Amino acid sequence: MGLSVDEKIELITRNLQEVVQEGELKSLVKSKKSISVYWGTMPTGSISIAYFFPMMKIADFLRAGLRVKILIADLHAALDSVDWDILDKRYEYYKEAILTILKTIDVDVSKLEFVRGSDIQLNKDYFHDLLKLTTLTSLHDSKKAASEGVKSAVGENVKLAGMVYPLMQALDEEYLKVDMQFAGVDQRKIMMYAREYLPKIGYKARVELMNPMIRGLIGEKMSSSIEGTKIDLLESEEKIKSKINKAECIAGNPDNGLMALLKYLIFIKKEKIIVNRPEKFGGDLEYSNYEELEKDFVEKKLHPLDLKNMVAREIIELLEKFRKSKKLKRLYKEAYGKEI
Amino acid sequence: MGLSVDEKIELITRNLQEVVQEGELKSLVKSKKSISVYWGTMPTGSISIAYFFPMMKIADFLRAGLRVKILIADLHAALDSVDWDILDKRYEYYKEAILTILKTIDVDVSKLEFVRGSDIQLNKDYFHDLLKLTTLTSLHDSKKAASEGVKSAVGENVKLAGMVYPLMQALDEEYLKVDMQFAGVDQRKIMMYAREYLPKIGYKARVELMNPMIRGLIGEKMSSSIEGTKIDLLESEEKIKSKINKAECIAGNPDNGLMALLKYLIFIKKEKIIVNRPEKFGGDLEYSNYEELEKDFVEKKLHPLDLKNMVAREIIELLEKFRKSKKLKRLYKEAYGKEI
Repeated sequence: MGLSVDEKIELITRNLQEVVQEGELKSLVKSKKSISVYWGTMPTGSISIAYFFPMMKIADFLRAGLRVKILIADLHAALDSVDWDILDKRYEYYKEAILTILKTIDVDVSKLEFVRGSDIQLNKDYFHDLLKLTTLTSLHDSKKAASEGVKSAVGENVKLAGMVYPLMQALDEEYLKVDMQFAGVDQRKIMMYAREYLPKIGYKARVELMNPMIRGLIGEKMSSSIEGTKIDLLESEEKIKSKINKAECIAGNPDNGLMALLKYLIFIKKEKIIVNRPEKFGGDLEYSNYEELEKDFVEKKLHPLDLKNMVAREIIELLEKFRKSKKLKRLYKEAYGKEI
Repeated sequence: MGLSVDEKIELITRNLQEVVQEGELKSLVKSKKSISVYWGTMPTGSISIAYFFPMMKIADFLRAGLRVKILIADLHAALDSVDWDILDKRYEYYKEAILTILKTIDVDVSKLEFVRGSDIQLNKDYFHDLLKLTTLTSLHDSKKAASEGVKSAVGENVKLAGMVYPLMQALDEEYLKVDMQFAGVDQRKIMMYAREYLPKIGYKARVELMNPMIRGLIGEKMSSSIEGTKIDLLESEEKIKSKINKAECIAGNPDNGLMALLKYLIFIKKEKIIVNRPEKFGGDLEYSNYEELEKDFVEKKLHPLDLKNMVAREIIELLEKFRKSKKLKRLYKEAYGKEI
């Protein structure tokens, strides 16, 4: 790659919420020929359009010349309440769906590697290191590390699995032999645990790259417990229209999930977007970047209904590959025991 | 063996405090040709004379025709705060010391098997089962199970290791392929955890055999934190005399550690014991069982000082093999970094 150090760092860090530590990242980029990063996901529920966001960053990493590993953390899914018997089917669905996202955004998938969690975790050395970490980690610290995002670690009936979860995520950095971890900022406490504890058992602390959390269509966060907050990759055209139609969108206020989709996904993928509008309401509008569109929306020159119609059309187009994939639908059915 | 079912059960259960469940034990003895039992110990601090007590039971098990496994649980020792680097040396000392105890009480050691914990624990299947147990075990239940006897599970700074400890002790029953576990009654909560949780991952609940806790020379319990409560296997003659001299022993009250040594150890090993006494105090006394001696002590016909002299003489004789073993002294030095 002919990129300068600064250009590489710009590609690696753009749109991120936080980098720990930026100085370490800079030294890495300066000193190391081949830098590697991993992004992990648990194969739990079906996959929403939100998965496009980290994949956009993975595209950036690849452009910056990084080696990328995608960890499908099957054992972590079990630790977080997925049935042991269904893990393999979930893995297959997740891998195919993620590959389809990457193809949709034109990522050269030959440059990244998929890893199944149990393949690097279920061995003597990993187990030994995990036990070492348990002797160093107070219950207080493991609870704290797991307190965001690990279901089995919160609420009335905390399971021991939820306490072990962060320790394994820390060890994954070592056993994947990577220089950096990339994750949503909801993983911050686990990443900070990893940085603190890996050196205690003789391994180096990794650079942690954190993506912002993207707003859902309804309310603050996308949530698997609230159906309308997110669009599934395999959603039908009708469902996409209906969900976007019901999405929160107050005229003049750009702080909503639709604008997030436009800013972090649609405008990054497309150079020009047209908002269709009847002649009597002013005719079509054309935007070549997000900022122009947001300005019109804030100034109420662009009506929420017209915005919604445009976003629905774009999302329907974006997800066409998914709806048309027989393989993905079959894998979905095997993984979740039902048609979507 | 020509023993009847009842005779076998009598040998297996005599002097135990509790059997869970007796009915299951009876069915086992009736139906199964070859029954196996394990007793586990963590290679932590140096070994006291108290180790003779479980070994007396192991002699009973062997007489009853059981197959016996002695687990030296090195990883458990690490979970309970022993340095990882010293585990192998501790293992060597423990094995040799336990073998010497068994020889001292004339047990045919060819009929039992020593197992190192890490040899059966550090593998893929065991780790997988452990993770399964963590998904089923609430923090509350693992805390409860570990609340007696697991140092890293109590106090101000509870470690995650202490929570994992009982789950591994439960799995050991399965991975040692035994029908029963034998331990001190201080392990009761862990044993009850094992009975409840092994069936949840498809394994059978084992029969649990519990030894009473033996009183220390001072106070209620033998304690590694109170030097005078116990006699080390390698103790010098002078130290044995001095510790027994300082032992609690009130004339007429048989509830003390010296009487426990006589009842559960010295009289089981010997058929006749002589208490030396100057002619002016009535001359020598001779006892052929513990009950006779206790009767005289309660009736104050046997003075604490004469009792102490006799016990000291017997213990010095009992531990002669240990003091004379160069191998044991070398292994001790390697395991603890000092001469005893």
